[in-house]
Amino acid sequence: MFYHIHTGIYHTQMENIQMSPKEELLERFLDYASRGDLAKVSGMISHSSFLVNESGENGWTALMLAARNGHTDIVDNLLSNGCDTFLVNKSAQTAYDIAKFWGHRHIARLLAKTENKCQRILPSDRMEEHENYFTREVFNRMSEKRSDSKWLEAKQSSPDTVFILFFNLNPLVSASEESKTAHPGIKLCRLDASSVNKELLQKSGTTVIFLGVEKQRSSSSSPPKEGNEPTAWFALNTDDNPMDHLQLTNPNSFFLKPPMPGLLKLSEAEAGIIAQASSVLAWHNRYSFCPTCGSNTNVEEGGYKRTCFNKDCRSRQGIHNTCYPRVDPVVIMLVIHPDGNQCLLGRKKTFPAGMFSCLAGFIEPGEAIEDAVRRETEEESGVKVGPVQYVSCQPWPMPSSLMIGCLAVAMSTDIKVDEKEIEEARWFTRQQVIDVIVKGTKPAFTMPPRQAIAHQLVKHWIGMSSNL
Amino acid sequence: MFYHIHTGIYHTQMENIQMSPKEELLERFLDYASRGDLAKVSGMISHSSFLVNESGENGWTALMLAARNGHTDIVDNLLSNGCDTFLVNKSAQTAYDIAKFWGHRHIARLLAKTENKCQRILPSDRMEEHENYFTREVFNRMSEKRSDSKWLEAKQSSPDTVFILFFNLNPLVSASEESKTAHPGIKLCRLDASSVNKELLQKSGTTVIFLGVEKQRSSSSSPPKEGNEPTAWFALNTDDNPMDHLQLTNPNSFFLKPPMPGLLKLSEAEAGIIAQASSVLAWHNRYSFCPTCGSNTNVEEGGYKRTCFNKDCRSRQGIHNTCYPRVDPVVIMLVIHPDGNQCLLGRKKTFPAGMFSCLAGFIEPGEAIEDAVRRETEEESGVKVGPVQYVSCQPWPMPSSLMIGCLAVAMSTDIKVDEKEIEEARWFTRQQVIDVIVKGTKPAFTMPPRQAIAHQLVKHWIGMSSNL
Ligand SMILES: [Zn+2]
Ligand SMILES: [Zn+2]
Repeated sequence: MFYHIHTGIYHTQMENIQMSPKEELLERFLDYASRGDLAKVSGMISHSSFLVNESGENGWTALMLAARNGHTDIVDNLLSNGCDTFLVNKSAQTAYDIAKFWGHRHIARLLAKTENKCQRILPSDRMEEHENYFTREVFNRMSEKRSDSKWLEAKQSSPDTVFILFFNLNPLVSASEESKTAHPGIKLCRLDASSVNKELLQKSGTTVIFLGVEKQRSSSSSPPKEGNEPTAWFALNTDDNPMDHLQLTNPNSFFLKPPMPGLLKLSEAEAGIIAQASSVLAWHNRYSFCPTCGSNTNVEEGGYKRTCFNKDCRSRQGIHNTCYPRVDPVVIMLVIHPDGNQCLLGRKKTFPAGMFSCLAGFIEPGEAIEDAVRRETEEESGVKVGPVQYVSCQPWPMPSSLMIGCLAVAMSTDIKVDEKEIEEARWFTRQQVIDVIVKGTKPAFTMPPRQAIAHQLVKHWIGMSSNL
Repeated sequence: MFYHIHTGIYHTQMENIQMSPKEELLERFLDYASRGDLAKVSGMISHSSFLVNESGENGWTALMLAARNGHTDIVDNLLSNGCDTFLVNKSAQTAYDIAKFWGHRHIARLLAKTENKCQRILPSDRMEEHENYFTREVFNRMSEKRSDSKWLEAKQSSPDTVFILFFNLNPLVSASEESKTAHPGIKLCRLDASSVNKELLQKSGTTVIFLGVEKQRSSSSSPPKEGNEPTAWFALNTDDNPMDHLQLTNPNSFFLKPPMPGLLKLSEAEAGIIAQASSVLAWHNRYSFCPTCGSNTNVEEGGYKRTCFNKDCRSRQGIHNTCYPRVDPVVIMLVIHPDGNQCLLGRKKTFPAGMFSCLAGFIEPGEAIEDAVRRETEEESGVKVGPVQYVSCQPWPMPSSLMIGCLAVAMSTDIKVDEKEIEEARWFTRQQVIDVIVKGTKPAFTMPPRQAIAHQLVKHWIGMSSNL
């Protein structure tokens, strides 16, 4: 067993291994980089440029060794010789990681700049953004077009435009082609302007909102034809059975009533569409009257504004939130036991038997996210919470919540549930939740499905990929 | 110059230094810990227990060295001998940091568990929570008491109870005692039940809301007297000049009209109180009528609910957001240039001359925080954004926003402003914003004050403490 001078790692039985000339060259090169001998490093590169990206013991390159030992001049030289800063050693560390760990800030900055990796610009190590269900944005919302009524009208009668339809907020769907598989899905029915006739659009109980235009995929192999504008989408809700006014091409379509939990069978893309459409339509459904004076209101800006008919109403002076769709921020948190190995889950009476989930609650006026997590957890379970950390979020269009998902650390462990809110709350071990997530043979309970952020928070905690 | 075998760091001129017997003992002890000699380590501790927390070269303790080299048994032994896991070496690394860096996961877990540091339970390295202005929670909101009208009535007439007063949403304040200093402050006028008479409380244009009770400070040296309940607070808004109904003890009190920017002169604690009170009162002021049917509504639950008078209204079946205060989530983001060294700031026409701030905008229905950051940035400035990272948030009670502060990384650099939204947007270098924040001699522009989250986001980015 010997101790490797450059990487600080003990090795066994290395002494007797015969090296090839190339290996010997590399060994010398790495040694010079490690010791900061600029003249030798530079000289060797000029003869054997391949050396810059070669790695020795445990995957350490010359750049890593120079970064390790704070040799800025060597790092500079290697960079100007085009070395790869993305290489990692066997511990998955880049030269940047190593420079940062050993406190060589100047080198870390140099490498961060060169790597030009977004992750390096942001202070945290974990930059992964989670894609939760209902979060995919398939449209460019083009809010600047909402006040352009001519443009909107032209789009509404364009043959390329897609309409999706709701009857009393229940979307028109059909079974998807993969419905014969083990996991039958549904998909939104896409109607065109000729199926949605003028009569339906202009009925008093009908609301039409502009969703946006399909995002151009820059990676697409076939660029959009010249002059071809991207497809516009609208959503339409009516409180009258619209079947008389429709020419449906798909006889297997039906209104999904109630929308949940059926909505969770949509594709990721269509779930993103529903998140937007359902939320805005639900707002229209509940907010027909001006809350400030009680008058009727008029839909404007492509369905993103309601203006009071009463000309003297205060809501018409300045900008007021009464005129715009409502989004309700909610905290949802996985509270971790102080031992780091258990988490707190609760169940409402309305949950299916045996199901537990993360605690959650609406953020109150004047309250920060972190404080809402602490207040709700203590109210519902009696458990006191210390640090809180944002993980990811999820729009939840029932009717229009924004679920803000956090991990939180408990400072107390005694549970005392508020029976008005939840029926039971319990600490579950890491192993118990792993059994549930990976569907072991004897899970102690069940959890909401992968489409719910509660499920993703648990996955995140146990260190599993959050990919859906 | 020699290479230190345990810590992997080069040293100069160490060979010739004479060691004391204690130093020699420590040197041997650290050497055994580093090499994994359990018998020797254990034996030395039994004679010289002080060794467990002693550090040698560069602040490395035996625990750090054992963690470095993966000797689980030594780590175990040191832990059971009560060694301090919070010690850091000269690079500010704990043994945990070292174990994690070198990939000794089992040891990292062992240390995380033992340290019992909340930070270790959460996956990110940076657990600091920022306290922004308007975020301090001085009350236990006691939402369970909101439906207990008897309790609320008793509290309203209790001599200990504090009332704060608003006239047309402008709070009653007075100059604080420190007003003669360079930074004059204001404070809320605290009225008691005898100053706020029944007549005022029951007028038709008056709204009373329950704020909560003062949090018990567990760290207080004098515990609350037995039977002494914590002080309850209420806020009261009236649309009639309330001076006829008031007995004011402070002749220097006045209604702060308009509330901004004067509110920013409150103490942290009172800013937190205003964040809650103003938001809820502003909701009552704008939402007197049922948005679903246009009927009048009745204030309930201590001011946290309005119920439609119309018994047939849909809003009375089930739970509907129309009955509860509104909180508007807003994204506010500091967008960083791909070079990592510049940030994007913009100015609205309404800003004071020369002032720039972070871009911001309301989160739309069905939209995730990160997507709102990307959409708003592109809409307002034309700059495309990649990764987004949550930093901290701030309630902004004008009237009831929740500002969600993020850092974001630009994927493009050309600026094209939406002139309806902002007048100008520009890339500023790190040095330029540092000059503004530290008030250098020649700042190129001005920024919002420290009480605004925009200011704190910039401070966070340039790596300065965000303490107010
Ligand atoms: Zn009105
Ligand atoms: Zn009503």
